Amino acid sequence: ESRLPGFATHQVGVAGAVVDESNGKVLVVQDRNKTKNAWKFPGGLSDPGENIGATAVREVLEETGVRSEFRSLLSVRQQHDHPGAFGMSDMYVICRLSPLTYDIDFCTQECLRCDWLDLADLAHTDDTTPITSRVAKLLLHGLERGFDHVDLTMEELPAVYSGKFYQLYHRRLPPTRER
Amino acid sequence: ESRLPGFATHQVGVAGAVVDESNGKVLVVQDRNKTKNAWKFPGGLSDPGENIGATAVREVLEETGVRSEFRSLLSVRQQHDHPGAFGMSDMYVICRLSPLTYDIDFCTQECLRCDWLDLADLAHTDDTTPITSRVAKLLLHGLERGFDHVDLTMEELPAVYSGKFYQLYHRRLPPTRER
Repeated sequence: ESRLPGFATHQVGVAGAVVDESNGKVLVVQDRNKTKNAWKFPGGLSDPGENIGATAVREVLEETGVRSEFRSLLSVRQQHDHPGAFGMSDMYVICRLSPLTYDIDFCTQECLRCDWLDLADLAHTDDTTPITSRVAKLLLHGLERGFDHVDLTMEELPAVYSGKFYQLYHRRLPPTRER
Repeated sequence: ESRLPGFATHQVGVAGAVVDESNGKVLVVQDRNKTKNAWKFPGGLSDPGENIGATAVREVLEETGVRSEFRSLLSVRQQHDHPGAFGMSDMYVICRLSPLTYDIDFCTQECLRCDWLDLADLAHTDDTTPITSRVAKLLLHGLERGFDHVDLTMEELPAVYSGKFYQLYHRRLPPTRER
Protein backbone atom coordinates (compact mmCIF):
# COMPACT_ATOMS: atom_id res chain seq x y z
CA GLU A 1 0.00 0.00 0.00
CA SER A 2 3.02 2.30 0.21
CA ARG A 3 3.48 3.54 -3.33
CA LEU A 4 5.97 6.35 -2.82
CA PRO A 5 9.72 5.89 -2.84
CA GLY A 6 10.62 5.04 0.67
CA PHE A 7 12.29 6.95 3.38
CA ALA A 8 11.77 6.33 7.04
CA THR A 9 9.91 9.04 8.90
CA HIS A 10 8.93 7.43 12.18
CA GLN A 11 10.23 5.60 15.21
CA VAL A 12 8.26 2.70 16.58
CA GLY A 13 8.42 2.14 20.32
CA VAL A 14 6.99 -0.85 22.10
CA ALA A 15 6.31 -1.41 25.80
CA GLY A 16 5.36 -4.67 27.46
CA ALA A 17 2.88 -4.97 30.30
CA VAL A 18 3.69 -8.33 31.89
CA VAL A 19 0.62 -9.40 33.87
CA ASP A 20 0.74 -12.19 36.44
CA GLU A 21 -2.85 -13.42 36.34
CA SER A 22 -2.38 -15.54 39.45
CA ASN A 23 -2.06 -12.51 41.75
CA GLY A 24 -3.08 -9.47 39.69
CA LYS A 25 0.39 -7.94 39.63
CA VAL A 26 2.14 -6.22 36.74
CA LEU A 27 5.85 -5.59 36.12
CA VAL A 28 6.84 -1.90 36.14
CA VAL A 29 10.03 0.15 36.20
CA GLN A 30 11.14 3.67 37.04
CA ASP A 31 13.61 5.20 34.61
CA ARG A 32 16.90 6.36 36.00
CA ASN A 33 17.18 9.47 33.87
CA LYS A 34 13.78 11.06 34.20
CA THR A 35 12.92 13.94 36.48
CA LYS A 36 9.76 12.36 37.77
CA ASN A 37 9.89 8.91 39.35
CA ALA A 38 6.93 7.52 37.52
CA TRP A 39 6.16 3.82 37.28
CA LYS A 40 5.82 2.68 33.70
CA PHE A 41 6.01 -0.44 31.60
CA PRO A 42 9.46 -1.46 30.36
CA GLY A 43 10.01 -0.88 26.65
CA GLY A 44 12.09 0.68 23.92
CA LEU A 45 12.57 1.15 20.22
CA SER A 46 11.71 -1.50 17.67
CA ASP A 47 14.58 -2.51 15.41
CA PRO A 48 13.95 -2.58 11.65
CA GLY A 49 12.62 -6.02 10.79
CA GLU A 50 11.60 -6.78 14.36
CA ASN A 51 8.02 -7.72 15.15
CA ILE A 52 6.12 -5.74 17.79
CA GLY A 53 5.82 -8.70 20.12
CA ALA A 54 9.51 -9.54 19.79
CA THR A 55 10.48 -5.97 20.71
CA ALA A 56 8.30 -6.07 23.82
CA VAL A 57 9.70 -9.41 25.00
CA ARG A 58 13.30 -8.31 24.31
CA GLU A 59 13.01 -4.96 26.07
CA VAL A 60 11.31 -6.48 29.11
CA LEU A 61 14.10 -9.05 29.41
CA GLU A 62 16.86 -6.44 28.95
CA GLU A 63 15.43 -4.04 31.51
CA THR A 64 14.01 -6.38 34.15
CA GLY A 65 15.49 -9.85 33.67
CA VAL A 66 12.00 -11.34 33.37
CA ARG A 67 11.26 -13.67 30.48
CA SER A 68 7.78 -13.41 28.95
CA GLU A 69 5.66 -14.23 25.94
CA PHE A 70 3.45 -12.07 23.73
CA ARG A 71 -0.31 -12.21 24.22
CA SER A 72 -1.97 -9.21 22.57
CA LEU A 73 -1.75 -5.59 21.57
CA LEU A 74 -3.51 -3.18 23.93
CA SER A 75 -3.03 0.37 22.71
CA VAL A 76 -1.45 2.56 20.08
CA ARG A 77 -0.24 6.08 20.68
CA GLN A 78 0.88 8.66 18.19
CA GLN A 79 2.98 11.55 19.38
CA HIS A 80 4.91 14.31 17.66
CA ASP A 81 7.93 16.33 18.75
CA HIS A 82 8.35 14.59 22.08
CA PRO A 83 11.63 14.78 23.96
CA GLY A 84 14.06 12.18 22.68
CA ALA A 85 12.56 11.91 19.21
CA PHE A 86 14.53 14.85 17.80
CA GLY A 87 11.65 16.35 15.90
CA MET A 88 10.33 13.09 14.58
CA SER A 89 6.97 11.47 15.03
CA ASP A 90 6.60 8.16 16.72
CA MET A 91 4.19 5.35 17.18
CA TYR A 92 4.17 3.79 20.60
CA VAL A 93 2.48 0.45 21.11
CA ILE A 94 1.77 -1.31 24.40
CA CYS A 95 1.48 -5.10 24.42
CA ARG A 96 0.16 -7.52 26.99
CA LEU A 97 2.66 -10.23 27.91
CA SER A 98 2.52 -13.27 30.18
CA PRO A 99 5.45 -14.03 32.48
CA LEU A 100 7.56 -17.15 31.98
CA THR A 101 9.86 -16.26 34.90
CA TYR A 102 9.24 -14.04 37.92
CA ASP A 103 12.57 -13.11 39.50
CA ILE A 104 13.63 -9.52 38.88
CA ASP A 105 17.23 -8.74 37.90
CA PHE A 106 16.88 -5.24 36.55
CA CYS A 107 19.28 -3.12 34.51
CA THR A 108 20.68 -0.52 36.90
CA GLN A 109 21.94 1.59 34.01
CA GLU A 110 18.44 2.13 32.73
CA CYS A 111 16.24 1.69 35.78
CA LEU A 112 16.11 3.13 39.27
CA ARG A 113 13.53 0.64 40.49
CA CYS A 114 11.69 -2.41 39.20
CA ASP A 115 8.85 -4.22 40.91
CA TRP A 116 5.67 -6.26 40.58
CA LEU A 117 2.84 -3.86 41.54
CA ASP A 118 -0.82 -4.59 42.12
CA LEU A 119 -2.70 -3.53 39.01
CA ALA A 120 -5.32 -1.81 41.17
CA ASP A 121 -2.59 0.25 42.86
CA LEU A 122 -0.96 1.18 39.56
CA ALA A 123 -4.33 2.22 38.13
CA HIS A 124 -4.85 4.73 40.92
CA THR A 125 -1.43 5.98 42.00
CA ASP A 126 -0.17 9.46 41.13
CA ASP A 127 3.35 8.10 40.65
CA THR A 128 2.82 7.10 37.05
CA THR A 129 2.16 8.54 33.60
CA PRO A 130 -1.33 9.13 32.17
CA ILE A 131 -0.87 6.43 29.55
CA THR A 132 0.37 3.86 32.09
CA SER A 133 -2.56 4.65 34.35
CA ARG A 134 -5.00 4.23 31.49
CA VAL A 135 -3.51 0.93 30.36
CA ALA A 136 -3.50 -0.30 33.98
CA LYS A 137 -7.25 0.36 34.05
CA LEU A 138 -7.62 -1.58 30.79
CA LEU A 139 -5.66 -4.49 32.28
CA LEU A 140 -7.65 -4.40 35.51
CA HIS A 141 -10.83 -4.59 33.47
CA GLY A 142 -9.36 -7.51 31.52
CA LEU A 143 -8.26 -9.31 34.66
CA GLU A 144 -11.73 -9.11 36.14
CA ARG A 145 -13.87 -9.57 33.03
CA GLY A 146 -11.60 -11.48 30.68
CA PHE A 147 -8.83 -10.13 28.49
CA ASP A 148 -11.02 -10.60 25.41
CA HIS A 149 -12.62 -7.32 26.55
CA VAL A 150 -9.42 -5.34 26.02
CA ASP A 151 -7.18 -7.29 23.62
CA LEU A 152 -6.42 -6.79 19.98
CA THR A 153 -5.61 -10.24 18.69
CA MET A 154 -2.85 -10.97 16.22
CA GLU A 155 -3.20 -13.01 13.10
CA GLU A 156 -0.80 -13.77 10.28
CA LEU A 157 -2.18 -13.14 6.82
CA PRO A 158 -0.48 -13.60 3.44
CA ALA A 159 0.90 -10.54 1.66
CA VAL A 160 -0.44 -10.28 -1.87
CA TYR A 161 2.68 -9.57 -3.86
CA SER A 162 5.63 -10.87 -1.91
CA GLY A 163 4.36 -14.25 -0.79
CA LYS A 164 5.40 -13.30 2.74
CA PHE A 165 3.17 -13.00 5.76
CA TYR A 166 2.33 -10.06 7.91
CA GLN A 167 0.87 -9.59 11.35
CA LEU A 168 -2.53 -7.95 11.54
CA TYR A 169 -3.95 -6.77 14.87
CA HIS A 170 -7.64 -6.01 15.37
CA ARG A 171 -10.51 -6.89 17.65
CA ARG A 172 -11.51 -10.51 17.61
CA LEU A 173 -14.42 -11.34 15.33
CA PRO A 174 -16.98 -13.98 16.20
CA PRO A 175 -15.87 -17.20 14.42
CA THR A 176 -18.89 -17.10 12.13
CA ARG A 177 -17.70 -13.71 10.86
CA GLU A 178 -14.23 -14.78 9.88
CA ARG A 179 -15.34 -16.81 6.92
CA GLU B 1 9.68 6.40 26.43
CA SER B 2 12.24 6.62 23.62
CA ARG B 3 15.53 6.98 25.39
CA LEU B 4 17.94 6.40 22.53
CA PRO B 5 19.21 9.10 20.20
CA GLY B 6 16.71 9.28 17.44
CA PHE B 7 16.78 8.09 13.92
CA ALA B 8 13.73 7.12 11.94
CA THR B 9 13.42 3.44 11.09
CA HIS B 10 9.84 3.01 9.97
CA GLN B 11 7.23 4.27 7.59
CA VAL B 12 3.68 4.72 8.78
CA GLY B 13 0.92 4.15 6.24
CA VAL B 14 -2.73 4.90 6.83
CA ALA B 15 -5.80 3.78 4.90
CA GLY B 16 -9.33 5.07 5.33
CA ALA B 17 -12.43 2.89 5.11
CA VAL B 18 -15.25 5.38 4.44
CA VAL B 19 -18.49 3.64 5.43
CA ASP B 20 -21.89 4.99 4.39
CA GLU B 21 -24.06 3.66 7.21
CA SER B 22 -27.28 4.58 5.37
CA ASN B 23 -26.77 1.92 2.69
CA GLY B 24 -23.91 -0.32 3.90
CA LYS B 25 -21.48 0.75 1.20
CA VAL B 26 -17.77 1.46 1.52
CA LEU B 27 -15.44 3.49 -0.68
CA VAL B 28 -12.75 1.44 -2.45
CA VAL B 29 -10.17 1.91 -5.20
CA GLN B 30 -8.08 -0.19 -7.52
CA ASP B 31 -4.48 0.96 -7.92
CA ARG B 32 -3.31 1.76 -11.43
CA ASN B 33 0.16 0.29 -11.05
CA LYS B 34 -0.49 -3.08 -9.49
CA THR B 35 -0.55 -6.37 -11.29
CA LYS B 36 -3.75 -7.57 -9.65
CA ASN B 37 -6.86 -5.46 -9.82
CA ALA B 38 -7.72 -5.76 -6.18
CA TRP B 39 -10.20 -3.47 -4.44
CA LYS B 40 -8.70 -1.81 -1.42
CA PHE B 41 -9.15 1.20 0.82
CA PRO B 42 -7.54 4.45 -0.31
CA GLY B 43 -4.50 5.46 1.71
CA GLY B 44 -0.86 6.42 1.76
CA LEU B 45 2.08 7.47 3.87
CA SER B 46 1.75 9.61 6.93
CA ASP B 47 3.80 12.79 6.91
CA PRO B 48 5.98 13.55 9.93
CA GLY B 49 3.88 15.45 12.42
CA GLU B 50 0.60 14.33 10.85
CA ASN B 51 -1.98 12.54 12.96
CA ILE B 52 -3.27 9.17 11.80
CA GLY B 53 -6.80 10.44 11.26
CA ALA B 54 -5.57 13.44 9.28
CA THR B 55 -3.55 11.18 6.96
CA ALA B 56 -6.57 8.98 6.30
CA VAL B 57 -8.86 11.92 5.54
CA ARG B 58 -6.23 13.58 3.30
CA GLU B 59 -5.43 10.44 1.31
CA VAL B 60 -9.09 9.59 0.79
CA LEU B 61 -9.74 13.11 -0.52
CA GLU B 62 -6.68 13.07 -2.81
CA GLU B 63 -7.45 9.66 -4.31
CA THR B 64 -11.25 9.71 -4.51
CA GLY B 65 -12.50 13.31 -4.16
CA VAL B 66 -14.69 12.28 -1.21
CA ARG B 67 -14.52 14.36 1.96
CA SER B 68 -14.79 12.45 5.23
CA GLU B 69 -14.18 12.61 8.96
CA PHE B 70 -12.28 10.34 11.33
CA ARG B 71 -14.25 7.94 13.54
CA SER B 72 -11.95 5.21 14.89
CA LEU B 73 -8.93 3.03 14.39
CA LEU B 74 -9.73 -0.51 13.22
CA SER B 75 -6.50 -2.42 12.70
CA VAL B 76 -2.72 -2.24 12.83
CA ARG B 77 -0.43 -4.23 10.59
CA GLN B 78 3.29 -4.66 10.78
CA GLN B 79 5.19 -5.78 7.72
CA HIS B 80 8.85 -6.05 6.83
CA ASP B 81 10.63 -5.93 3.48
CA HIS B 82 7.52 -5.39 1.45
CA PRO B 83 7.74 -3.99 -2.09
CA GLY B 84 7.88 -0.20 -2.00
CA ALA B 85 9.45 0.06 1.42
CA PHE B 86 13.02 -0.44 0.19
CA GLY B 87 14.07 -2.76 2.96
CA MET B 88 12.37 -0.88 5.75
CA SER B 89 9.68 -1.96 8.11
CA ASP B 90 6.34 -0.31 8.17
CA MET B 91 3.28 0.11 10.28
CA TYR B 92 0.02 0.21 8.40
CA VAL B 93 -3.10 1.43 10.12
CA ILE B 94 -6.69 1.30 8.85
CA CYS B 95 -9.19 3.86 10.12
CA ARG B 96 -12.96 4.02 9.95
CA LEU B 97 -14.22 7.27 8.43
CA SER B 98 -17.69 8.72 7.86
CA PRO B 99 -18.47 10.41 4.54
CA LEU B 100 -19.21 14.14 4.40
CA THR B 101 -19.65 14.07 0.60
CA TYR B 102 -20.51 11.19 -1.71
CA ASP B 103 -19.61 12.12 -5.31
CA ILE B 104 -16.51 10.37 -6.61
CA ASP B 105 -13.88 12.33 -8.56
CA PHE B 106 -10.94 9.98 -8.42
CA CYS B 107 -7.28 10.55 -9.20
CA THR B 108 -6.67 8.83 -12.54
CA GLN B 109 -2.92 8.93 -12.02
CA GLU B 110 -3.16 6.72 -8.96
CA CYS B 111 -6.38 4.78 -9.47
CA LEU B 112 -7.84 2.63 -12.21
CA ARG B 113 -11.28 2.46 -10.60
CA CYS B 114 -13.08 3.90 -7.62
CA ASP B 115 -16.53 2.95 -6.39
CA TRP B 116 -18.88 2.54 -3.46
CA LEU B 117 -19.18 -1.24 -2.94
CA ASP B 118 -21.54 -3.17 -0.69
CA LEU B 119 -19.59 -4.19 2.40
CA ALA B 120 -21.04 -7.69 2.14
CA ASP B 121 -19.75 -7.99 -1.43
CA LEU B 122 -16.29 -6.68 -0.50
CA ALA B 123 -16.09 -9.10 2.41
CA HIS B 124 -16.58 -12.07 0.11
CA THR B 125 -15.10 -11.16 -3.27
CA ASP B 126 -11.83 -12.64 -4.52
CA ASP B 127 -10.90 -9.32 -6.12
CA THR B 128 -9.35 -7.88 -3.01
CA THR B 129 -6.44 -8.31 -0.61
CA PRO B 130 -6.58 -10.49 2.51
CA ILE B 131 -6.34 -7.46 4.80
CA THR B 132 -9.12 -5.60 2.97
CA SER B 133 -11.33 -8.66 3.14
CA ARG B 134 -10.70 -9.04 6.86
CA VAL B 135 -11.42 -5.38 7.59
CA ALA B 136 -14.56 -5.55 5.44
CA LYS B 137 -15.76 -8.38 7.70
CA LEU B 138 -14.97 -6.24 10.76
CA LEU B 139 -16.96 -3.35 9.26
CA LEU B 140 -19.87 -5.59 8.34
CA HIS B 141 -19.96 -6.84 11.91
CA GLY B 142 -19.89 -3.24 13.14
CA LEU B 143 -22.63 -2.17 10.75
CA GLU B 144 -24.93 -4.93 11.98
CA ARG B 145 -24.04 -5.00 15.69
CA GLY B 146 -22.74 -1.50 16.34
CA PHE B 147 -19.30 -0.11 15.63
CA ASP B 148 -18.46 -0.22 19.35
CA HIS B 149 -17.83 -3.94 18.66
CA VAL B 150 -14.93 -3.22 16.31
CA ASP B 151 -13.62 0.29 17.07
CA LEU B 152 -10.57 1.46 18.93
CA THR B 153 -11.53 4.85 20.29
CA MET B 154 -9.19 7.81 20.38
CA GLU B 155 -8.54 9.99 23.36
CA GLU B 156 -6.15 12.86 23.94
CA LEU B 157 -4.04 12.56 27.08
CA PRO B 158 -1.39 14.94 28.43
CA ALA B 159 2.27 14.13 27.84
CA VAL B 160 4.23 14.14 31.07
CA TYR B 161 7.30 16.14 30.16
CA SER B 162 6.41 18.36 27.24
CA GLY B 163 3.01 19.66 28.30
CA LYS B 164 1.71 18.58 24.89
CA PHE B 165 -1.04 16.10 24.19
CA TYR B 166 -0.96 12.81 22.40
CA GLN B 167 -3.57 10.55 20.88
CA LEU B 168 -4.07 7.18 22.52
CA TYR B 169 -6.13 4.47 20.82
CA HIS B 170 -7.52 1.49 22.69
CA ARG B 171 -10.76 -0.35 23.27
CA ARG B 172 -13.41 1.68 25.02
CA LEU B 173 -13.62 1.14 28.76
CA PRO B 174 -16.92 1.20 30.64
CA PRO B 175 -17.29 4.76 32.05
CA THR B 176 -16.96 3.47 35.61
CA ARG B 177 -13.52 2.13 34.72
CA GLU B 178 -12.10 5.37 33.37
CA ARG B 179 -11.89 7.01 36.77
